[in-house]
Amino acid sequence: MTVGILSIGTEITRGEIVDTNAAFLAAALAEAGFDVSGSSSVADEPDRIAATLTRMANEHEVIIATGGLGPTTDDLTAKAAAKAAGVELRRDESALLAIRRRLESRGRAVTVHHEKQADLPHTSEVLTNADGTAPGFALKIASATAFFMPGVPSEMKRMFRDQVLPRIGPSAPKKTHVVRLRTFGLPESTAAELLADIEGAFPGITIGYRLHAPELDIKVFARKDSYDEARLLATECAAVVSRALGDCVFGEGDEDLASITSRALRAKGYRLALAESCTGGLISRLLTAHAGASDFFLGSAVTYANSAKTRLLSVSEDTLRGHGAVSAEVAAEMATGARRAYDSEVGASVTGVAGPGGGSTHKPVGLVYWAVAHPGGVIVRERVFKGDRDEVQLQAAYSALDLIRRVASELSEQAEPPLSQRPPSR
Amino acid sequence: MTVGILSIGTEITRGEIVDTNAAFLAAALAEAGFDVSGSSSVADEPDRIAATLTRMANEHEVIIATGGLGPTTDDLTAKAAAKAAGVELRRDESALLAIRRRLESRGRAVTVHHEKQADLPHTSEVLTNADGTAPGFALKIASATAFFMPGVPSEMKRMFRDQVLPRIGPSAPKKTHVVRLRTFGLPESTAAELLADIEGAFPGITIGYRLHAPELDIKVFARKDSYDEARLLATECAAVVSRALGDCVFGEGDEDLASITSRALRAKGYRLALAESCTGGLISRLLTAHAGASDFFLGSAVTYANSAKTRLLSVSEDTLRGHGAVSAEVAAEMATGARRAYDSEVGASVTGVAGPGGGSTHKPVGLVYWAVAHPGGVIVRERVFKGDRDEVQLQAAYSALDLIRRVASELSEQAEPPLSQRPPSR
Repeated sequence: MTVGILSIGTEITRGEIVDTNAAFLAAALAEAGFDVSGSSSVADEPDRIAATLTRMANEHEVIIATGGLGPTTDDLTAKAAAKAAGVELRRDESALLAIRRRLESRGRAVTVHHEKQADLPHTSEVLTNADGTAPGFALKIASATAFFMPGVPSEMKRMFRDQVLPRIGPSAPKKTHVVRLRTFGLPESTAAELLADIEGAFPGITIGYRLHAPELDIKVFARKDSYDEARLLATECAAVVSRALGDCVFGEGDEDLASITSRALRAKGYRLALAESCTGGLISRLLTAHAGASDFFLGSAVTYANSAKTRLLSVSEDTLRGHGAVSAEVAAEMATGARRAYDSEVGASVTGVAGPGGGSTHKPVGLVYWAVAHPGGVIVRERVFKGDRDEVQLQAAYSALDLIRRVASELSEQAEPPLSQRPPSR
Repeated sequence: MTVGILSIGTEITRGEIVDTNAAFLAAALAEAGFDVSGSSSVADEPDRIAATLTRMANEHEVIIATGGLGPTTDDLTAKAAAKAAGVELRRDESALLAIRRRLESRGRAVTVHHEKQADLPHTSEVLTNADGTAPGFALKIASATAFFMPGVPSEMKRMFRDQVLPRIGPSAPKKTHVVRLRTFGLPESTAAELLADIEGAFPGITIGYRLHAPELDIKVFARKDSYDEARLLATECAAVVSRALGDCVFGEGDEDLASITSRALRAKGYRLALAESCTGGLISRLLTAHAGASDFFLGSAVTYANSAKTRLLSVSEDTLRGHGAVSAEVAAEMATGARRAYDSEVGASVTGVAGPGGGSTHKPVGLVYWAVAHPGGVIVRERVFKGDRDEVQLQAAYSALDLIRRVASELSEQAEPPLSQRPPSR
């Protein structure tokens, strides 16, 4: 049983809005065990909508459509659906009553435009709208069942959950479970190599990669005949995947590297202060995007100018002159300076050449030093990152977060995927 | 001539990511004068991809496809495209060379997975990828021309702009010109009211609104028979729109509020230092995302903890005790403290309750104070922002940037849309 998703609206086909409804429905249907093999969007033109519905009714058993049910003149979905089903529109009295009641309860006048929303295909079944005036409806088109819902996300989500999913859920072909492993420090191609044999070894498993740079998510997706079997398979397989990727796996589920680093600092009872040069406040921003950062985070001295490094962090002018602002020595002094200035257990720093200008032969664009000063000493790391300014800044910020995580969690200071498991490169 | 958009990837059909590529392409094609009547997505399954391509080749003269060109086992677009075109895959030597060079220049090993990306349909034309290893390609499928690009947005956008648009642009049915006005401080509904009569007064013009909160772009979109006519009409209409919206319009084109604020500071010869509490480094991050910030930006003291406000910015403990960290008085002391600590002409500060916790009756979640200290004095502003943590932080950061812009540009300190021009509300 396959399901097709259709988004109706010229605002989508012209790119004026991003189609988040299709993504929501695809995720909800996949989680419910359906095979969603594709989706489409179409402009607010009755003939094109009808043709697309006819085509989709040949390809799928179920069609989930959104949009074009409102009161304005460009809301033409009901008319097009009737055409595709080969039936007439008729005014639905129960839907009309619901529209009138909703508007009157809000003290608003009922217009012909509102009433038009009750004109539904003759053979359709009404889906009531708890959050708006536009009713949805279910309709047979050829041998497919099509569900039509409003395009307003909040109205659509509730109608889908309360009225569509209960009707189609029981016929989902498979039950599924997903484990999402979060990694940092692994190129996608390396991860793919390390995991090349997993799908073969675990029938029913699909491995998916999602790069939201510089993090890489590994999705372990299991499909079985029952939820229990799917959960068991996904969990078992995720453990094998996790071992293969070593401590590049920093977490599971929705938590990003900043959250996990925060948690490690809280668990250890370490307060953190930062000293940021080329990352310009990015690390601080990543940590404070999450509520509760004040538990451990004292602040960040963003010291873009050399004078600021001296004034706020007591970096010595001799070190700046002798080694340059982008150097291991300055990174170390910035980290210890942040620790002292804020009176924290951990100080972390980043200094580098983010580009596109400012590079030289000895200090190319992308050269970054980062350091962590903690009760046990100071660690300094160096790397030349590839990419544009934004990519260099992101990689530098995440590398510093990862080093803080490793210090707070007492892991090794370097990423350790067990590369011995890699098949030999040619 | 119609154009169809196809997004290939199980991560899209399963709803794991929102398909922003389709929206970008739809907008870019509409801007270039094409009629985009619909789009589709399809999972990473060769038979389904091939069937969708065959169907779309019957419906459209041009197909723009993204995704499925990478090195992993689920990247199957080239194979499917070859099937739809009825040709074989062959290894493209020039594409192979480009892949090897790119990897070797980054010191990375070339694997069979990378090399697979050079296996392209026999009759295709290679589209080089300036930003990644996966080449794109152009291919005839039946009577349609299909362009295949990587799914990574940055790689796709550049390939589309540099290689696809020059090939198809000349055959666009209408010529268009767009002026994009950038605004801050105007709700979308207010802008729509102020501009209600524009489309009627300028035939050939469409006004589009694009909210990327908290900025609101106003797109003045002209379609005419020649580029010159379209440019003239768009420019003339944009001047009228700009007058109607007053100094809420901060710029035009691609420059965001941080860029425009930076430019105003440079022009005035003012160096800037920040003191950030609830924005946690966000303002600093917005400014340093652009190269050349070191011209005027000295740094930001992110002082999340009260102790940090005292230690780094010399905010008095009496003020903190008497008024609380979220107060006009502390905002003013932070701004003057930043000016002093960094030795700058302008100091700007933000302190507030970003939420979701930490609110009270007197100081609710969303309450934010921001201040600018400059050679002429200190300005403090207060507002309760609506929304979640992220929305409060963004609105606070942009409000502070806007106040800095107004000070550096010698504009009034408050947004001034000429509201007298608004049509009376019904």
